[in-house]
Amino acid sequence: MEDSPEGVDWRSVCPISSALDVVGDKWSLLIIRDLLIHGPRTYSDFLESGENISTNILAARLSMLTCLKLIERSNPQAGARNNAFKLTPGGAALRPVIEALAQWAQTHLKAFHADIV
Amino acid sequence: MEDSPEGVDWRSVCPISSALDVVGDKWSLLIIRDLLIHGPRTYSDFLESGENISTNILAARLSMLTCLKLIERSNPQAGARNNAFKLTPGGAALRPVIEALAQWAQTHLKAFHADIV
Repeated sequence: MEDSPEGVDWRSVCPISSALDVVGDKWSLLIIRDLLIHGPRTYSDFLESGENISTNILAARLSMLTCLKLIERSNPQAGARNNAFKLTPGGAALRPVIEALAQWAQTHLKAFHADIV
Repeated sequence: MEDSPEGVDWRSVCPISSALDVVGDKWSLLIIRDLLIHGPRTYSDFLESGENISTNILAARLSMLTCLKLIERSNPQAGARNNAFKLTPGGAALRPVIEALAQWAQTHLKAFHADIV
C-alpha cells in the first residue's frame, strides 16, 4: 500500500466518503473537467477558466491531485514553468462522476440557475 | 425561475461547476447517501453515521439541501423535534453521482486507503 497523501484524513471505510475525502470540494473536479475537455493544461491555462480559481487554491489542488496520481506532469524532464499537467488513467476514470453531475445539474438546478448550459 | 437559495454563488453557467456550487463539499452527498440507503432519517440518525459530522455542519447542510428542494420534512405537520427528512425526486436523482463516486473510489483509492469496503 502506498503512503496516504499528506492532508487526507480518511473519515471512514465507505467508498463514497473516501472519494469525497479527496475530491469533495468545489475545485478539484473542475481541474479534472478542464483536462478531460482540453487535454494537457498549464498552470496559466487553469487560471483562465470561467470560475476564476485563485492561485493558492489551484496550487494546493494540483499538488493534492498529483500526490494521488490523478494528474501528472506532461513532460517530467522539463522545468515547472509552462510544464503542463495531464490526466493519469485514475484521473480520467472520474469522467462518469463528472458526466453524472452535469446531467443532474441540467435537470435539477435549472429552476434555480436558468443560465446553465 | 425560483429564487436562488441564499448562500449559493453560481460561479459560471457550466453544469458541472453549478452542481459543485451546491454539493461540492465533503458532507452534502453523505447526507444524500444516508437517505438513499436508509430512507427517512432524523437529525440524530445523521449524527450517528460513521463520519462523525458536527452538529453545526449538519444543520447548515440540511438547511441548504432543503432550500434546494433536494430533501424535505417527512411529516411537515409535525414539529421539528424527531421529524425525519426524506429525499425529493431531485435529491434521489443524485444516485448516479454517488454510485459513480463509489465505483471510482473502490478502483482508484485502494492503493492509498486499503480498508475501503
